[in-house]
Amino acid sequence: MAIKITGTGSYIPTSIEKNENFHQHQFLNTDGSTLTHPNEVIIQKFKAITGIDERRYAYDHLTSSDLGFFAAEKAIEDANINREELDYIIVAHNFGDVKHNTIQSDILPCLASRIKHSLRIKNPKCVAYDILFGCPGWVEGVIQANAFIKAGLAKKCLVIGTETLSRVVDKHDRDSMIYSDGAGATIVEATDGDGGILAHETASFTYDEAYYLFFGNSNNKELCPDTRYIKMDGRKIYEFALSNVPLAMKDCLDKSGVNIKDIKKIFIHQANEKMDEAILKRFYKLYDEEIPEGIMPMSIQELGNSSVATIPTLYDLVINDKIKDQHVNKGDVVMFASVGAGMHINAIVYKY
Amino acid sequence: MAIKITGTGSYIPTSIEKNENFHQHQFLNTDGSTLTHPNEVIIQKFKAITGIDERRYAYDHLTSSDLGFFAAEKAIEDANINREELDYIIVAHNFGDVKHNTIQSDILPCLASRIKHSLRIKNPKCVAYDILFGCPGWVEGVIQANAFIKAGLAKKCLVIGTETLSRVVDKHDRDSMIYSDGAGATIVEATDGDGGILAHETASFTYDEAYYLFFGNSNNKELCPDTRYIKMDGRKIYEFALSNVPLAMKDCLDKSGVNIKDIKKIFIHQANEKMDEAILKRFYKLYDEEIPEGIMPMSIQELGNSSVATIPTLYDLVINDKIKDQHVNKGDVVMFASVGAGMHINAIVYKY
Repeated sequence: MAIKITGTGSYIPTSIEKNENFHQHQFLNTDGSTLTHPNEVIIQKFKAITGIDERRYAYDHLTSSDLGFFAAEKAIEDANINREELDYIIVAHNFGDVKHNTIQSDILPCLASRIKHSLRIKNPKCVAYDILFGCPGWVEGVIQANAFIKAGLAKKCLVIGTETLSRVVDKHDRDSMIYSDGAGATIVEATDGDGGILAHETASFTYDEAYYLFFGNSNNKELCPDTRYIKMDGRKIYEFALSNVPLAMKDCLDKSGVNIKDIKKIFIHQANEKMDEAILKRFYKLYDEEIPEGIMPMSIQELGNSSVATIPTLYDLVINDKIKDQHVNKGDVVMFASVGAGMHINAIVYKY
Repeated sequence: MAIKITGTGSYIPTSIEKNENFHQHQFLNTDGSTLTHPNEVIIQKFKAITGIDERRYAYDHLTSSDLGFFAAEKAIEDANINREELDYIIVAHNFGDVKHNTIQSDILPCLASRIKHSLRIKNPKCVAYDILFGCPGWVEGVIQANAFIKAGLAKKCLVIGTETLSRVVDKHDRDSMIYSDGAGATIVEATDGDGGILAHETASFTYDEAYYLFFGNSNNKELCPDTRYIKMDGRKIYEFALSNVPLAMKDCLDKSGVNIKDIKKIFIHQANEKMDEAILKRFYKLYDEEIPEGIMPMSIQELGNSSVATIPTLYDLVINDKIKDQHVNKGDVVMFASVGAGMHINAIVYKY
C-alpha cells in the first residue's frame, strides 16, 4: 500500500495587494515610535528580505472556510473520487473565520464542519475536524491522515489549509506586509503500488519558543488594548528556523532512506525568501552537497505568506506546470517542510 | 497491547455561580422581545430540564489554557510518568483563550503549545496540537491518540479538554445558564495486558445540522452586531441527539463485541440532564433492556456544561470516588459518549 496525494486544488484570491499599496501606511516601531526611514525605503528593504512584491486578499464577503471550500471542490474533482467516500476532512487554519472589518474569530462550528456542509456531503461517517498547528498545519494534517490510514480508520482523506491573515494584521506593523490569504486542498488516499509518503517528522518547540508568534497589540498605542493582531519576533524566528528546520528535514530524509541527490524538489513554507534560501543552504551543507538549481520552487513574490495554504498551493501550481521552469515527474521524490507558530516544524518525504 | 487511560486529572474552578445569581438578568427572546415569565419561573423551568443548580466560572485572571495546564499536571502526576516521554499533547477546546471582559479568541499559538510551555517540557519530539470538534473534542482526542499509538507514532499521549464558556455567553439568552468552565486531562498509553479502548465510533452530521450550534448575535438587538456569542437551537439539538446518539453508541458497542449487560457505567457529555436521560432510555430500548440503576453518573447539577471538559472531569471524579454511590472497579467495561457543535457524535467502549 502507498499513501498518496491523488488530487490537489487551490484557491488564490483574485484581489492583488501590491507593495505600493502600503506607501501611505503609518508604520510604527513596537514601542509606538515612528520609523525613521520613509515608507518607500522600508518597503524596498522588506522586498529585499522577504521577496514579496504583492500578496492576495480575499474578497470582503468571503471567509476562510469559503476559501477552503473552493480549494476542496477542485481537489475532489482532480482526484476524481466520490466525495461521499471521504473518511476524514481535516482543516488547518490559525484564526478561524474572521469576517471583514470585525475582530472576532468564528470557530463554532469548526471550519471542517462548514466546509463539509458546503461540499454537500451527506455521509456522517466522514469525520470533519480542525487542527491548529501554526503554519505547519496542512503538513501535519497530511501526517495525521497518513496515521489514520495506517491505523485502519480511513482510506480517503481531504486535507485543507486555509487562512485569511489579511483580517488579523496590524496596519501599523511593517510585518503586516508579509501576510496573505489563500487555501490549498489535497486528497490523501491509500493506493496500490509504491511511493507516496515515505517518511515524516514533526517537532514542537515550546520551552522558549512558544510565543515567538503571538496575538498582540497594535504598534499604535492609541488603539484599543483589547484588540489584538498577529505579531511576531522576526529575528528570533529567523535564528530558530535556521538552527532547527534543516535538522528536522535531515531527520526526515534519513528516515526515508532516500539519498539527498535523489530529491527533485523541496516545497518549503513560503514565509520569507531569504530565510527559505538560508534554510536550504544549511540543509545541503549538512550533507556536504551543492544546492541543485531550481530545487526550491517559490510563489512568495506574488502570493505572500498565506500560512497553512502556502505549501498545498505551491504544490498544486507546480504539478500543474503553472510556475515557470518548474515540473514534477512521476517517480520524483520531493520534500515538504514547514515552520511556524507554536513553534512547530515538520517535513515529509514524498514519492510522486 | 492495550491502549489505556493511565492517569486522570481535572480542574474545577472554585468560583460557584448559582442559579439565583441569574435572577437579575434581563432575558430576551431571540427576536429581542421580553420573556413573559418572571426570572424565578424561567430559572425553575431551566433547572427542571437541564438539572443545573449551579456552574463554575474560572477566575478572571485565568484562561482556558491555564485550566488545561492545571488538569494536565494532575494527570501526569496520577499516571506517574516522566513528562519528557510524552509523544503528543492534544488539546480540545472551542473558543481558545478568551481573556475576561474581552471578545477575541486567542488561538495563536495553539493552546497545546501554551500548555506544553507551562508544563516545562523540553522534548521537541512531543507534538502539541489543538483539535476543534465541538463538545466531543476530548473523546475525539482520545480516538486520535489511539490511532497514533496504533500507527506506531506514539506510546504516551496527553489528551486535554478545556473550556471557558462563561467568556462567550450572551447574558440576554437564558441558554447562557447552561454553560460553565473547566478542564479535564488524561494520559493515554500503550500498555501490556488486555482491556483499554475496545472500540470507538465517530460521526459528523453537517448536511442540515452544521449550524445548530453557532456563533451569533445577542438577543439584545441594541448590542453591537459585530459581537457574537455561543448560540444554539436547543429544540433541534434535542431531537437530533435523541435520534442519532443512541444509534452511534450502539454501533460502537456492537463493534466492541461487549454485551450491553456487561456495561457498568456510561459517561455521557453533561449537556442537559433530561436529554441525557432520554438518550440513555433510547439506547437501552435498542437492546430491549432495562436501564440498570446508577449506570449514568452525573455532575451537571453542580458543574453545568463545560463542553469538552465534562467527560474527562466526570470520569476523574468517579474513578476517584468523588461522586456519591459511583465507583468503577478494575475490569469494568464503561462507555464514553458525546454530542455537540458540528454536529459531531462519538463514543468509546473502554475496559478499565
